Amino acid sequence: MPDTPPEAPTSATAGDPEAGFLLDPRLEADTIHLGDLPLSRALLMNDARFPWLILVPRRAGASEIADLDEVDATALMGEIRLSARLLAEIAGPDKTNVGALGNIVTQLHVHIVARFLSDPAWPGPVWGHGARTPYPPHAAHALVERLRAAFAAA
Amino acid sequence: MPDTPPEAPTSATAGDPEAGFLLDPRLEADTIHLGDLPLSRALLMNDARFPWLILVPRRAGASEIADLDEVDATALMGEIRLSARLLAEIAGPDKTNVGALGNIVTQLHVHIVARFLSDPAWPGPVWGHGARTPYPPHAAHALVERLRAAFAAA
Repeated sequence: MPDTPPEAPTSATAGDPEAGFLLDPRLEADTIHLGDLPLSRALLMNDARFPWLILVPRRAGASEIADLDEVDATALMGEIRLSARLLAEIAGPDKTNVGALGNIVTQLHVHIVARFLSDPAWPGPVWGHGARTPYPPHAAHALVERLRAAFAAA
Repeated sequence: MPDTPPEAPTSATAGDPEAGFLLDPRLEADTIHLGDLPLSRALLMNDARFPWLILVPRRAGASEIADLDEVDATALMGEIRLSARLLAEIAGPDKTNVGALGNIVTQLHVHIVARFLSDPAWPGPVWGHGARTPYPPHAAHALVERLRAAFAAA
């Protein structure tokens, strides 16, 4: 018998590291898919109040950043920085907020939010602030196309 | 004349990367110093409502995670994970929240907060929630000694 049967890989590289990954249905309902980076699914929060990206590492069962292995954690940091740069180029924020909370949706996900002195939650956090305001269809389309192109070119 | 005179280093490694770093006075006033990791100053938020660490990369002028170079960003991710593990061991939280906001204090700093279903802000974020409640002196002393020892041994 083999030491590591296929049904019980002993490390993330022994099988498909994305096996079993399924986007949380609440994240799916609130966001628009932008593309898949090497580690993470990139999403746009469908909330016109704030330019707001979400990265979801495609690792089943991960809830905390500490649940990732070191290679994935380094990749996540790179994808956070890439997302922050794209968002800064497109939105020109006064500040960028980065957060991994997961108090409601436990699937590991990282928020990258462009913040403005003039936005409705400033200087407080966006999480838990009022109700999500979906983009008007045309505005979402233009922004989504720009972000998809930027992620694809990155 | 040298190509890179000492008064104008062309990269972070050309001089002391910590040159000019000074902890923001608001962070200093609200926290207790735990120790210095290779990149970051580790602080305990003096707020008995939440076990709450803050990491401040010792890089003058950094405000965004994207302001760090790639080596420092990878180091920061490692120190976030270390801090989350120590906090989990000591506090046993239901969830760990990680955030880099900086809407009020712009000096780059990362919060690592142990969250509990029973805590006063759950499931909302801790930032901007009510007023900081300093530890009673004896409680702070015991916790600070444990955290200092854990960081020093890490």
